[in-house]
Amino acid sequence: MPALEFWYDFASTYSYPAAMRIEGAAQQSGVALRWRPFLLGPIFKAQGWNDSPFNLYPAKGRYMWRDLERLCAKAQLPLTRPARFPQNSLKAARLALTGEDLPWIAPFTRAVYTANFASQKNIAEDETLSGILTALNVDAAGAMERANAPANKQRLKDRTDEALRRGLFGAPSFLAGDELFWGNDRLEEALAWASRP
Amino acid sequence: MPALEFWYDFASTYSYPAAMRIEGAAQQSGVALRWRPFLLGPIFKAQGWNDSPFNLYPAKGRYMWRDLERLCAKAQLPLTRPARFPQNSLKAARLALTGEDLPWIAPFTRAVYTANFASQKNIAEDETLSGILTALNVDAAGAMERANAPANKQRLKDRTDEALRRGLFGAPSFLAGDELFWGNDRLEEALAWASRP
Repeated sequence: MPALEFWYDFASTYSYPAAMRIEGAAQQSGVALRWRPFLLGPIFKAQGWNDSPFNLYPAKGRYMWRDLERLCAKAQLPLTRPARFPQNSLKAARLALTGEDLPWIAPFTRAVYTANFASQKNIAEDETLSGILTALNVDAAGAMERANAPANKQRLKDRTDEALRRGLFGAPSFLAGDELFWGNDRLEEALAWASRP
Repeated sequence: MPALEFWYDFASTYSYPAAMRIEGAAQQSGVALRWRPFLLGPIFKAQGWNDSPFNLYPAKGRYMWRDLERLCAKAQLPLTRPARFPQNSLKAARLALTGEDLPWIAPFTRAVYTANFASQKNIAEDETLSGILTALNVDAAGAMERANAPANKQRLKDRTDEALRRGLFGAPSFLAGDELFWGNDRLEEALAWASRP
Protein backbone atom coordinates (compact mmCIF):
# COMPACT_ATOMS: atom_id res chain seq x y z
CA MET A 1 0.00 0.00 0.00
CA PRO A 2 1.43 3.41 -0.92
CA ALA A 3 2.12 5.76 1.97
CA LEU A 4 2.24 9.47 2.67
CA GLU A 5 3.87 11.19 5.63
CA PHE A 6 1.97 14.15 7.09
CA TRP A 7 4.34 16.54 8.87
CA TYR A 8 2.56 19.04 11.10
CA ASP A 9 3.02 21.47 13.96
CA PHE A 10 0.01 22.14 16.18
CA ALA A 11 0.68 25.88 16.01
CA SER A 12 0.61 25.97 12.20
CA THR A 13 -2.49 27.61 10.76
CA TYR A 14 -2.67 25.90 7.37
CA SER A 15 -2.02 22.55 9.05
CA TYR A 16 -5.45 22.90 10.66
CA PRO A 17 -7.56 22.38 7.50
CA ALA A 18 -5.05 19.77 6.31
CA ALA A 19 -5.33 17.81 9.56
CA MET A 20 -9.11 17.89 9.49
CA ARG A 21 -9.41 16.36 6.04
CA ILE A 22 -6.30 14.26 5.50
CA GLU A 23 -7.53 10.98 6.94
CA GLY A 24 -10.60 10.87 4.71
CA ALA A 25 -8.65 12.03 1.67
CA ALA A 26 -5.93 9.41 2.20
CA GLN A 27 -8.55 6.65 2.59
CA GLN A 28 -10.23 7.72 -0.64
CA SER A 29 -6.88 7.59 -2.43
CA GLY A 30 -5.94 4.21 -0.97
CA VAL A 31 -2.88 5.73 0.69
CA ALA A 32 -1.62 4.75 4.15
CA LEU A 33 -1.15 7.80 6.31
CA ARG A 34 1.83 8.35 8.61
CA TRP A 35 1.35 11.08 11.19
CA ARG A 36 4.57 13.00 11.76
CA PRO A 37 4.24 15.67 14.46
CA PHE A 38 7.25 17.97 14.66
CA LEU A 39 8.20 21.47 15.78
CA LEU A 40 8.47 24.36 13.36
CA GLY A 41 10.24 26.66 15.82
CA PRO A 42 13.73 25.20 15.27
CA ILE A 43 13.10 25.14 11.50
CA PHE A 44 12.22 28.82 11.56
CA LYS A 45 15.25 29.55 13.74
CA ALA A 46 17.46 27.86 11.14
CA GLN A 47 16.03 30.41 8.67
CA GLY A 48 16.85 33.26 11.01
CA TRP A 49 13.32 33.79 12.35
CA ASN A 50 12.52 33.92 16.03
CA ASP A 51 8.75 34.12 15.45
CA SER A 52 6.19 32.96 12.90
CA PRO A 53 6.76 34.59 9.50
CA PHE A 54 3.09 35.59 9.72
CA ASN A 55 4.03 37.82 12.65
CA LEU A 56 7.38 38.94 11.26
CA TYR A 57 5.79 39.97 7.93
CA PRO A 58 2.51 41.68 8.82
CA ALA A 59 1.14 41.95 5.25
CA LYS A 60 1.66 38.22 4.82
CA GLY A 61 0.06 37.59 8.20
CA ARG A 62 -3.02 39.70 7.44
CA TYR A 63 -3.43 37.85 4.17
CA MET A 64 -3.01 34.44 5.78
CA TRP A 65 -5.80 35.03 8.31
CA ARG A 66 -8.16 36.22 5.58
CA ASP A 67 -7.20 33.35 3.29
CA LEU A 68 -7.68 30.85 6.11
CA GLU A 69 -11.08 32.38 6.87
CA ARG A 70 -12.21 31.91 3.25
CA LEU A 71 -10.75 28.42 3.14
CA CYS A 72 -12.40 27.30 6.38
CA ALA A 73 -15.73 28.81 5.32
CA LYS A 74 -15.58 26.81 2.09
CA ALA A 75 -14.67 23.61 3.98
CA GLN A 76 -17.33 24.37 6.64
CA LEU A 77 -14.69 24.30 9.34
CA PRO A 78 -15.13 26.52 12.39
CA LEU A 79 -12.41 29.14 12.82
CA THR A 80 -11.88 31.55 15.69
CA ARG A 81 -8.63 33.41 15.64
CA PRO A 82 -6.63 32.35 18.71
CA ALA A 83 -5.86 35.05 21.25
CA ARG A 84 -2.21 34.14 21.02
CA PHE A 85 -0.44 33.15 17.84
CA PRO A 86 1.56 31.02 17.52
CA GLN A 87 0.69 28.93 20.54
CA ASN A 88 3.39 26.88 22.24
CA SER A 89 2.96 23.44 20.71
CA LEU A 90 5.78 21.62 22.49
CA LYS A 91 3.68 19.57 24.93
CA ALA A 92 1.12 18.65 22.30
CA ALA A 93 3.88 17.53 19.93
CA ARG A 94 5.52 15.38 22.60
CA LEU A 95 2.19 13.76 23.38
CA ALA A 96 1.38 13.19 19.71
CA LEU A 97 4.78 11.59 19.24
CA THR A 98 3.99 8.96 21.88
CA GLY A 99 0.83 8.03 20.01
CA GLU A 100 1.72 8.57 16.38
CA ASP A 101 1.33 4.89 15.51
CA LEU A 102 -1.71 4.33 17.74
CA PRO A 103 -5.36 4.67 16.70
CA TRP A 104 -5.90 7.77 18.85
CA ILE A 105 -3.38 9.89 16.89
CA ALA A 106 -5.96 10.96 14.29
CA PRO A 107 -8.74 12.15 16.64
CA PHE A 108 -6.15 13.56 19.07
CA THR A 109 -4.56 15.61 16.30
CA ARG A 110 -7.92 16.93 15.12
CA ALA A 111 -8.99 17.75 18.68
CA VAL A 112 -5.81 19.74 19.40
CA TYR A 113 -6.23 21.74 16.18
CA THR A 114 -9.87 22.37 17.04
CA ALA A 115 -8.85 23.52 20.53
CA ASN A 116 -6.33 25.91 19.00
CA PHE A 117 -8.19 27.30 15.99
CA ALA A 118 -11.87 26.90 16.84
CA SER A 119 -12.24 26.90 20.63
CA GLN A 120 -9.62 29.42 21.78
CA LYS A 121 -8.14 26.98 24.23
CA ASN A 122 -4.56 27.07 25.42
CA ILE A 123 -2.92 23.97 23.95
CA ALA A 124 0.17 24.50 26.10
CA GLU A 125 -1.84 23.67 29.23
CA ASP A 126 -1.83 20.14 30.64
CA GLU A 127 -5.54 20.55 31.41
CA THR A 128 -6.46 21.08 27.76
CA LEU A 129 -4.37 18.16 26.60
CA SER A 130 -5.42 15.70 29.28
CA GLY A 131 -9.05 16.68 28.68
CA ILE A 132 -8.64 15.73 25.03
CA LEU A 133 -6.94 12.43 25.89
CA THR A 134 -9.54 11.51 28.48
CA ALA A 135 -12.35 12.21 26.02
CA LEU A 136 -10.66 9.70 23.70
CA ASN A 137 -10.45 7.10 26.47
CA VAL A 138 -6.68 7.39 26.60
CA ASP A 139 -4.96 7.18 29.98
CA ALA A 140 -3.92 10.84 30.21
CA ALA A 141 -1.53 10.46 33.15
CA GLY A 142 0.27 7.56 31.47
CA ALA A 143 0.54 9.43 28.16
CA MET A 144 1.88 12.54 29.91
CA GLU A 145 4.50 10.46 31.64
CA ARG A 146 5.63 8.88 28.38
CA ALA A 147 5.59 12.32 26.71
CA ASN A 148 7.91 13.79 29.32
CA ALA A 149 10.36 10.91 29.40
CA PRO A 150 13.86 11.97 28.28
CA ALA A 151 13.84 9.45 25.41
CA ASN A 152 10.66 10.99 24.00
CA LYS A 153 12.00 14.52 24.35
CA GLN A 154 15.08 13.43 22.42
CA ARG A 155 12.91 11.74 19.82
CA LEU A 156 11.12 15.03 19.11
CA LYS A 157 14.49 16.76 18.65
CA ASP A 158 15.57 13.99 16.28
CA ARG A 159 12.31 14.36 14.40
CA THR A 160 12.93 18.05 13.86
CA ASP A 161 16.50 17.34 12.72
CA GLU A 162 15.05 14.84 10.28
CA ALA A 163 12.68 17.54 8.98
CA LEU A 164 15.61 19.85 8.27
CA ARG A 165 17.61 17.07 6.68
CA ARG A 166 14.75 16.11 4.38
CA GLY A 167 14.25 19.68 3.17
CA LEU A 168 11.19 20.77 5.14
CA PHE A 169 10.86 24.48 5.75
CA GLY A 170 7.23 24.87 6.77
CA ALA A 171 4.00 23.06 7.59
CA PRO A 172 1.95 21.26 6.63
CA SER A 173 4.37 19.21 4.58
CA PHE A 174 3.74 15.90 2.89
CA LEU A 175 6.43 13.39 1.94
CA ALA A 176 5.89 10.59 -0.55
CA GLY A 177 9.27 8.92 -0.21
CA ASP A 178 11.62 11.84 -0.82
CA GLU A 179 9.10 13.84 -2.84
CA LEU A 180 8.14 16.91 -0.83
CA PHE A 181 4.87 18.84 -1.04
CA TRP A 182 4.24 21.93 1.05
CA GLY A 183 0.92 23.45 2.02
CA ASN A 184 -2.67 22.42 2.58
CA ASP A 185 -3.35 23.19 -1.08
CA ARG A 186 -0.86 20.51 -2.19
CA LEU A 187 -2.54 17.63 -0.33
CA GLU A 188 -4.40 16.26 -3.35
CA GLU A 189 -1.27 16.42 -5.49
CA ALA A 190 0.77 14.67 -2.77
CA LEU A 191 -1.80 11.87 -2.52
CA ALA A 192 -1.88 11.51 -6.31
CA TRP A 193 1.92 11.33 -6.34
CA ALA A 194 1.98 8.75 -3.54
CA SER A 195 -0.55 6.51 -5.28
CA ARG A 196 0.96 6.67 -8.78
CA PRO A 197 1.09 3.24 -10.39
CA MET B 1 -18.93 42.56 -16.21
CA PRO B 2 -16.98 41.44 -13.13
CA ALA B 3 -13.26 42.15 -13.19
CA LEU B 4 -10.07 40.74 -11.74
CA GLU B 5 -6.70 42.46 -11.47
CA PHE B 6 -3.66 40.30 -12.18
CA TRP B 7 -0.55 41.69 -10.45
CA TYR B 8 2.69 40.21 -11.72
CA ASP B 9 6.44 40.69 -11.87
CA PHE B 10 8.27 39.21 -14.85
CA ALA B 11 10.92 37.76 -12.53
CA SER B 12 8.38 35.87 -10.41
CA THR B 13 8.44 32.12 -10.95
CA TYR B 14 4.87 31.23 -9.99
CA SER B 15 3.61 34.15 -12.05
CA TYR B 16 4.77 32.25 -15.13
CA PRO B 17 2.12 29.48 -15.06
CA ALA B 18 -0.46 32.03 -13.90
CA ALA B 19 0.31 34.35 -16.84
CA MET B 20 0.11 31.52 -19.35
CA ARG B 21 -3.38 30.43 -18.34
CA ILE B 22 -5.11 33.47 -16.89
CA GLU B 23 -6.58 34.88 -20.09
CA GLY B 24 -8.35 31.64 -20.98
CA ALA B 25 -9.46 31.06 -17.40
CA ALA B 26 -10.88 34.59 -17.10
CA GLN B 27 -12.77 34.24 -20.38
CA GLN B 28 -14.29 30.96 -19.24
CA SER B 29 -15.40 32.62 -16.01
CA GLY B 30 -16.84 35.67 -17.77
CA VAL B 31 -14.43 37.93 -15.88
CA ALA B 32 -12.72 40.97 -17.42
CA LEU B 33 -8.98 40.81 -16.88
CA ARG B 34 -6.87 43.80 -15.87
CA TRP B 35 -3.14 43.31 -16.35
CA ARG B 36 -1.16 44.97 -13.57
CA PRO B 37 2.61 44.70 -14.05
CA PHE B 38 4.60 45.84 -11.02
CA LEU B 39 7.96 45.32 -9.34
CA LEU B 40 8.42 42.95 -6.45
CA GLY B 41 11.88 44.26 -5.54
CA PRO B 42 10.64 47.26 -3.52
CA ILE B 43 7.99 45.06 -1.88
CA PHE B 44 10.66 42.60 -0.78
CA LYS B 45 12.86 45.49 0.41
CA ALA B 46 9.97 46.70 2.58
CA GLN B 47 10.07 43.24 4.20
CA GLY B 48 13.80 43.53 4.78
CA TRP B 49 14.89 41.32 1.87
CA ASN B 50 17.47 42.40 -0.69
CA ASP B 51 17.00 39.31 -2.83
CA SER B 52 14.28 36.81 -3.70
CA PRO B 53 13.18 34.81 -0.64
CA PHE B 54 13.85 31.74 -2.79
CA ASN B 55 17.54 32.70 -2.75
CA LEU B 56 17.59 33.92 0.85
CA TYR B 57 15.98 30.69 2.11
CA PRO B 58 17.65 27.85 0.19
CA ALA B 59 15.34 25.04 1.37
CA LYS B 60 12.35 27.08 0.21
CA GLY B 61 14.12 27.82 -3.08
CA ARG B 62 14.96 24.17 -3.75
CA TYR B 63 11.37 23.24 -3.07
CA MET B 64 9.99 26.01 -5.29
CA TRP B 65 12.00 24.86 -8.33
CA ARG B 66 10.88 21.27 -7.86
CA ASP B 67 7.27 22.31 -7.28
CA LEU B 68 7.34 24.54 -10.37
CA GLU B 69 8.78 21.66 -12.38
CA ARG B 70 5.92 19.36 -11.35
CA LEU B 71 3.37 22.10 -11.93
CA CYS B 72 4.68 22.98 -15.42
CA ALA B 73 4.87 19.30 -16.39
CA LYS B 74 1.23 18.90 -15.40
CA ALA B 75 0.23 22.03 -17.35
CA GLN B 76 2.44 20.97 -20.29
CA LEU B 77 4.38 24.21 -20.03
CA PRO B 78 8.05 24.22 -20.99
CA LEU B 79 10.41 25.08 -18.15
CA THR B 80 14.15 25.64 -18.25
CA ARG B 81 15.65 27.06 -15.13
CA PRO B 82 17.08 30.49 -15.98
CA ALA B 83 20.83 30.90 -15.60
CA ARG B 84 20.19 33.91 -13.42
CA PHE B 85 17.40 34.21 -10.88
CA PRO B 86 15.76 36.57 -10.34
CA GLN B 87 16.24 38.39 -13.62
CA ASN B 88 16.05 42.17 -13.69
CA SER B 89 12.47 42.84 -14.74
CA LEU B 90 12.52 46.65 -14.69
CA LYS B 91 12.56 47.28 -18.43
CA ALA B 92 9.96 44.62 -19.15
CA ALA B 93 7.69 46.07 -16.47
CA ARG B 94 8.02 49.61 -17.85
CA LEU B 95 7.18 48.35 -21.32
CA ALA B 96 4.22 46.31 -20.10
CA LEU B 97 2.93 49.36 -18.27
CA THR B 98 2.75 51.34 -21.52
CA GLY B 99 0.64 48.60 -23.07
CA GLU B 100 -1.41 47.28 -20.18
CA ASP B 101 -4.70 48.41 -21.69
CA LEU B 102 -3.76 47.52 -25.28
CA PRO B 103 -4.42 44.20 -27.03
CA TRP B 104 -0.73 43.28 -27.11
CA ILE B 105 -0.35 43.15 -23.33
CA ALA B 106 -1.51 39.50 -23.13
CA PRO B 107 0.82 38.01 -25.79
CA PHE B 108 3.65 40.34 -24.70
CA THR B 109 3.34 39.16 -21.10
CA ARG B 110 3.32 35.52 -22.11
CA ALA B 111 6.28 36.01 -24.45
CA VAL B 112 8.40 37.68 -21.74
CA TYR B 113 7.64 34.86 -19.29
CA THR B 114 8.49 32.30 -21.95
CA ALA B 115 11.76 34.12 -22.68
CA ASN B 116 12.61 34.04 -18.97
CA PHE B 117 11.46 30.58 -17.90
CA ALA B 118 11.55 28.49 -21.06
CA SER B 119 14.10 30.02 -23.45
CA GLN B 120 16.87 31.21 -21.11
CA LYS B 121 16.83 34.67 -22.63
CA ASN B 122 17.92 37.78 -20.80
CA ILE B 123 14.75 39.83 -20.33
CA ALA B 124 16.77 42.83 -19.17
CA GLU B 125 18.18 43.26 -22.68
CA ASP B 126 16.57 45.68 -25.13
CA GLU B 127 17.18 43.15 -27.89
CA THR B 128 15.05 40.48 -26.24
CA LEU B 129 12.24 42.91 -25.53
CA SER B 130 12.20 44.63 -28.91
CA GLY B 131 12.31 41.22 -30.59
CA ILE B 132 9.15 40.26 -28.70
CA LEU B 133 7.41 43.54 -29.58
CA THR B 134 8.36 43.32 -33.25
CA ALA B 135 7.03 39.76 -33.48
CA LEU B 136 3.72 41.14 -32.18
CA ASN B 137 3.72 43.90 -34.83
CA VAL B 138 4.22 46.56 -32.16
CA ASP B 139 6.48 49.52 -33.00
CA ALA B 140 9.36 48.57 -30.70
CA ALA B 141 11.23 51.87 -30.88
CA GLY B 142 8.08 53.85 -30.08
CA ALA B 143 7.18 51.56 -27.17
CA MET B 144 10.72 51.79 -25.75
CA GLU B 145 10.53 55.57 -25.92
CA ARG B 146 7.22 55.65 -24.07
CA ALA B 147 8.59 53.12 -21.56
CA ASN B 148 11.57 55.29 -20.72
CA ALA B 149 9.66 58.55 -20.45
CA PRO B 150 9.85 60.05 -16.94
CA ALA B 151 6.07 59.93 -16.55
CA ASN B 152 6.04 56.19 -17.20
CA LYS B 153 8.93 55.57 -14.80
CA GLN B 154 7.00 57.45 -12.15
CA ARG B 155 3.87 55.47 -12.97
CA LEU B 156 5.69 52.22 -12.24
CA LYS B 157 6.82 53.60 -8.88
CA ASP B 158 3.24 54.63 -8.12
CA ARG B 159 2.05 51.18 -9.13
CA THR B 160 4.41 49.55 -6.67
CA ASP B 161 3.32 51.96 -3.92
CA GLU B 162 -0.25 50.99 -4.73
CA ALA B 163 0.70 47.32 -4.35
CA LEU B 164 2.07 47.98 -0.86
CA ARG B 165 -0.95 50.07 0.08
CA ARG B 166 -3.36 47.36 -1.04
CA GLY B 167 -1.62 44.67 0.98
CA LEU B 168 0.35 42.83 -1.69
CA PHE B 169 3.47 41.03 -0.50
CA GLY B 170 4.23 38.67 -3.38
CA ALA B 171 3.30 37.63 -6.90
CA PRO B 172 1.24 36.55 -8.62
CA SER B 173 -1.53 38.36 -6.78
CA PHE B 174 -5.14 38.74 -7.81
CA LEU B 175 -7.46 41.49 -6.63
CA ALA B 176 -11.24 41.32 -6.94
CA GLY B 177 -12.03 44.77 -5.60
CA ASP B 178 -10.20 44.75 -2.26
CA GLU B 179 -10.25 40.97 -1.93
CA LEU B 180 -6.70 39.70 -2.26
CA PHE B 181 -5.61 36.27 -3.47
CA TRP B 182 -1.97 35.25 -3.61
CA GLY B 183 -0.38 32.55 -5.69
CA ASN B 184 -0.94 30.69 -8.94
CA ASP B 185 -2.92 28.10 -7.01
CA ARG B 186 -5.49 30.70 -5.94
CA LEU B 187 -6.42 31.79 -9.48
CA GLU B 188 -9.57 29.68 -9.71
CA GLU B 189 -10.73 30.89 -6.30
CA ALA B 190 -10.06 34.51 -7.25
CA LEU B 191 -12.08 34.16 -10.47
CA ALA B 192 -14.92 32.50 -8.59
CA TRP B 193 -14.88 35.33 -6.05
CA ALA B 194 -14.86 37.99 -8.78
CA SER B 195 -17.82 36.42 -10.59
CA ARG B 196 -19.98 35.80 -7.51
CA PRO B 197 -23.57 36.83 -8.16
